[in-house]
Amino acid sequence: MNEFSEFQSRLQRPLDVKLSDFQRNERLKHLIFAAQLTPALLEKLRKMADMIRQLSRTRDGNLRLKHMLAHRRAMLYFTQPSTRTFLSFMAACQILGITCNEVRDPSTSSEVKRESKVDSIRMFSSYFDIIIMRTSNPIFSECCAYLMNELESADQRSVPIINAGAGAEEHPTQALLDMYTILRTFSHDYSRESKQSKFIEIQKQYPDLSPGPGNKTYLFCGDMGRGRTVRSLATVLSQYDNVRMFFVAPDYAELAMDRGLLRRYRDRGVDVHEFHSLDATFDGRPILALTDCLYMTRIQREHNSDKAEKDLAALDLSPFQFTPLRATVLKSYAPIMHPFPRDSVTNEIPTEIDSDSRAMYFRQARNGMWIRAALLVHLFDAAEELIDIYGEVRR
Amino acid sequence: MNEFSEFQSRLQRPLDVKLSDFQRNERLKHLIFAAQLTPALLEKLRKMADMIRQLSRTRDGNLRLKHMLAHRRAMLYFTQPSTRTFLSFMAACQILGITCNEVRDPSTSSEVKRESKVDSIRMFSSYFDIIIMRTSNPIFSECCAYLMNELESADQRSVPIINAGAGAEEHPTQALLDMYTILRTFSHDYSRESKQSKFIEIQKQYPDLSPGPGNKTYLFCGDMGRGRTVRSLATVLSQYDNVRMFFVAPDYAELAMDRGLLRRYRDRGVDVHEFHSLDATFDGRPILALTDCLYMTRIQREHNSDKAEKDLAALDLSPFQFTPLRATVLKSYAPIMHPFPRDSVTNEIPTEIDSDSRAMYFRQARNGMWIRAALLVHLFDAAEELIDIYGEVRR
Amino acid sequence: MNEFSEFQSRLQRPLDVKLSDFQRNERLKHLIFAAQLTPALLEKLRKMADMIRQLSRTRDGNLRLKHMLAHRRAMLYFTQPSTRTFLSFMAACQILGITCNEVRDPSTSSEVKRESKVDSIRMFSSYFDIIIMRTSNPIFSECCAYLMNELESADQRSVPIINAGAGAEEHPTQALLDMYTILRTFSHDYSRESKQSKFIEIQKQYPDLSPGPGNKTYLFCGDMGRGRTVRSLATVLSQYDNVRMFFVAPDYAELAMDRGLLRRYRDRGVDVHEFHSLDATFDGRPILALTDCLYMTRIQREHNSDKAEKDLAALDLSPFQFTPLRATVLKSYAPIMHPFPRDSVTNEIPTEIDSDSRAMYFRQARNGMWIRAALLVHLFDAAEELIDIYGEVRR
Repeated sequence: MNEFSEFQSRLQRPLDVKLSDFQRNERLKHLIFAAQLTPALLEKLRKMADMIRQLSRTRDGNLRLKHMLAHRRAMLYFTQPSTRTFLSFMAACQILGITCNEVRDPSTSSEVKRESKVDSIRMFSSYFDIIIMRTSNPIFSECCAYLMNELESADQRSVPIINAGAGAEEHPTQALLDMYTILRTFSHDYSRESKQSKFIEIQKQYPDLSPGPGNKTYLFCGDMGRGRTVRSLATVLSQYDNVRMFFVAPDYAELAMDRGLLRRYRDRGVDVHEFHSLDATFDGRPILALTDCLYMTRIQREHNSDKAEKDLAALDLSPFQFTPLRATVLKSYAPIMHPFPRDSVTNEIPTEIDSDSRAMYFRQARNGMWIRAALLVHLFDAAEELIDIYGEVRR
Repeated sequence: MNEFSEFQSRLQRPLDVKLSDFQRNERLKHLIFAAQLTPALLEKLRKMADMIRQLSRTRDGNLRLKHMLAHRRAMLYFTQPSTRTFLSFMAACQILGITCNEVRDPSTSSEVKRESKVDSIRMFSSYFDIIIMRTSNPIFSECCAYLMNELESADQRSVPIINAGAGAEEHPTQALLDMYTILRTFSHDYSRESKQSKFIEIQKQYPDLSPGPGNKTYLFCGDMGRGRTVRSLATVLSQYDNVRMFFVAPDYAELAMDRGLLRRYRDRGVDVHEFHSLDATFDGRPILALTDCLYMTRIQREHNSDKAEKDLAALDLSPFQFTPLRATVLKSYAPIMHPFPRDSVTNEIPTEIDSDSRAMYFRQARNGMWIRAALLVHLFDAAEELIDIYGEVRR
Repeated sequence: MNEFSEFQSRLQRPLDVKLSDFQRNERLKHLIFAAQLTPALLEKLRKMADMIRQLSRTRDGNLRLKHMLAHRRAMLYFTQPSTRTFLSFMAACQILGITCNEVRDPSTSSEVKRESKVDSIRMFSSYFDIIIMRTSNPIFSECCAYLMNELESADQRSVPIINAGAGAEEHPTQALLDMYTILRTFSHDYSRESKQSKFIEIQKQYPDLSPGPGNKTYLFCGDMGRGRTVRSLATVLSQYDNVRMFFVAPDYAELAMDRGLLRRYRDRGVDVHEFHSLDATFDGRPILALTDCLYMTRIQREHNSDKAEKDLAALDLSPFQFTPLRATVLKSYAPIMHPFPRDSVTNEIPTEIDSDSRAMYFRQARNGMWIRAALLVHLFDAAEELIDIYGEVRR
């Protein structure tokens, strides 16, 4: 931790104070915290992701996209193992023509030579135009953003930093793709694209259902204690009006949602409730019957202490499994989400559910690719060019 | 094996019945088995590979090729170690502008998280446009092809699967490149390209020699038991008329050709014979003097059991070495092939042979790159565009 | 070493005799030795690197560069661990549109199968258009260059070889980037680019200072014994007129500069002196006050024998640390260089120095990218095209 000591005073500031360090007027300079994902920014990114997705349907559109950022080079510094997020960023870069480079081995040769991590990152910034990083150290990407800001102030080369997962704390781009999936589900914009979004039809059946993420009940189920995706997504959702959140986890301290976060959500007006089974009831009705959006997660065994390993083995996890029977209780339009991978042993979503029309988890992964591409366009300040290309190809 | 249980009934069908699952009319949907490589398809792919090869001789041709599939992204899922096949596919993709992504570590992070292999592949199919896979599990690529077919039926995203080597059984793209080398050797089409093919000159000396793979004697030497390249190639050759095959291997059960395959070839009318030395005779003449095409292989020690390791150490392998002396016996036009790598200790082809004009093994490797590129063009249904480009550049 | 035995007689020739093997008239065929970097070639490469650098400042220039060698594929064969050099070459290739492939694992699958290294390299040469290699074996790249020359003589496919670091001996492209940094520092060509080069202003203060690397004092400090970067750079500098070199290292045999090299430099007229502290004096003045260019290095602990490990732990390394106090003694224009990584424990350049306007080590890394790109343009004989593009874009 010593090598980050020069950033200590900045690290200790409250989150709200920090955020402006990562903005340049209306635009993100770096993406470090899920809290940077405001409703306005999400809406902007959603529109860009939709454009990219539509352009990619034709070869011409694809080739125009691939030319867009062909002069840029990215470093994917993924010293914490990851397949899904890594490949999703790779694909996102490739869609835009960004050339990718990677460091994945936690013990790179330079670190063996006792190079400081800060020197390594500064070196990357001299070869590449953006650094996308996933590390087990929760503060590393934040410190890199400060380093880049300092270099910029000294009129030296500086590049954007993306936090692609930091320790157990933050995973802002996962929240981004989850939000993109939610925004698409509850939007009128897709009336012509048949399968994926049929919000108008839904509203015929449920005239009280409003568009957008507000005025909804979200049910999070599984590992609330170690799941950074749940924290990041719930933090973003807490910005919207009239949101209710159900957290369903085993009755075991390490798997429970963080007390501090729950308090923060309540302070913002979120209606928060905790349960210990998917069959629980609220106001006399099954919680699944009240749910507008279901977010399942895996019990993250790799974070278990020895004691937790033994305790968890004794736990009955069946109340946290989204079985076909429970699927009949869930609202008919509620998307079934999961950050993936799912656990093929615990089986929190059995494969029988895959053919359920509400199952969104595979689309969700593909959504991640589009919205990450949109994020890259935003960070490289190429939104206008995207709009131009979109206009030309669609004409 | 449990996770492939849903494919069990399809896996157990006879090969002939399966094949139609991997076709779309005249075109391959997936390449899983060498048996899919019919003479008609091989001829089509040979012509495309020749076009790609010729286009690549000029910078303009190269750049046109590189634009052709620039909107596509490939996943090379190579969890069984491989350098040669991997790099050959990389190069083939790069020639056509396809962006490459790879998973090479057998224990990817998602599998550590107990994700099922089927989920992993489906995830890849949401980011990439084709999956090229080499695995130690012999049925994995076949199951992936079934999964993709199911998704297609359900009107969901589906991509082609290429088997780039599956367990000890199949290596269809190796058979493809071997056949490309054989087709080029025995063809009239290359009369103007001097060095590599001089079939007309050969025919002046040997007027009875007919073009094409039929009416020839093939000698396979080395590890017939564990060499999937020999199986795959012999299976393809068994489709041609009037073929004779000599299999030369040590007198040791694990190194002998599979009895069932030999029976199948005989049923198809192939004239099959087995020997235990390159110096053996047939009808009173040295087998090498009767050979139109020599296919040497390495003893695959990495598959040895402890017992086999000991037994093989005691074997005399000198009768299976293609020495300069034996080279004088081989027909003057017979290509000397080897799937490579060769073993620098056993030395089945000493380096002295490298300067022999019949030595094809390095060209064979380069042929693999061209014919794999042709396969990609075929699977992406871009043959017409290739023909157009070829016409324009050559005009 | 056995597998290189066929190259034995060529390996044993004196360096001067060998050099012509790696040239094609005025142009490099391969880059194996730092001694190939003549002043004339360095000047040519500097100009090309400057053009590439300037073109990269605009998107149009970048895209033109990226098209330049888009029809080429490179193999980065880095079996000796390296992050910095590897990424620098990757970036250099990417700038020019060259597609990159890599082999980094020292035990590739084919070597497990007992393939000879020579076969591996020949295989790479059939898929790729250039091989950039860093190996712990000091003679490997040289042998590969001989192999390629033989293939060329036999009218077969042959590609350029770049030595990107060979054992403890040679690191010619590091010398190349160091020289590029030195040439830029002491040149009149950059009068309009303000920050990086202000040689005219310097000359106002120091009218005796001549342009170019000649007539200067170079101070090398740190690990003179195992630092191949120092050897390679000093060898290149020894070609210029009126050069003085100070070597500052602990008084410990393994860390001292090679006696043979010192003799060779003296024979060429270099004024060579050795010291055991940065505070040493020469002719009554502090050596730092006489230094036109400071080259700091890391003590390379990874090469330590057990005995050296113990001995070095007992050494006082503070006399070899470029502290802020010592920085006040160094000439006001002298660039502070370091091949990086620096050791964050030994701290030979404390981070306080990073903001010193003479600190060149981060720019030096970025210079490496530009000059390596220039080297690639040179080896692919594309200099004229670069000049054309430069002319068109700047018009």
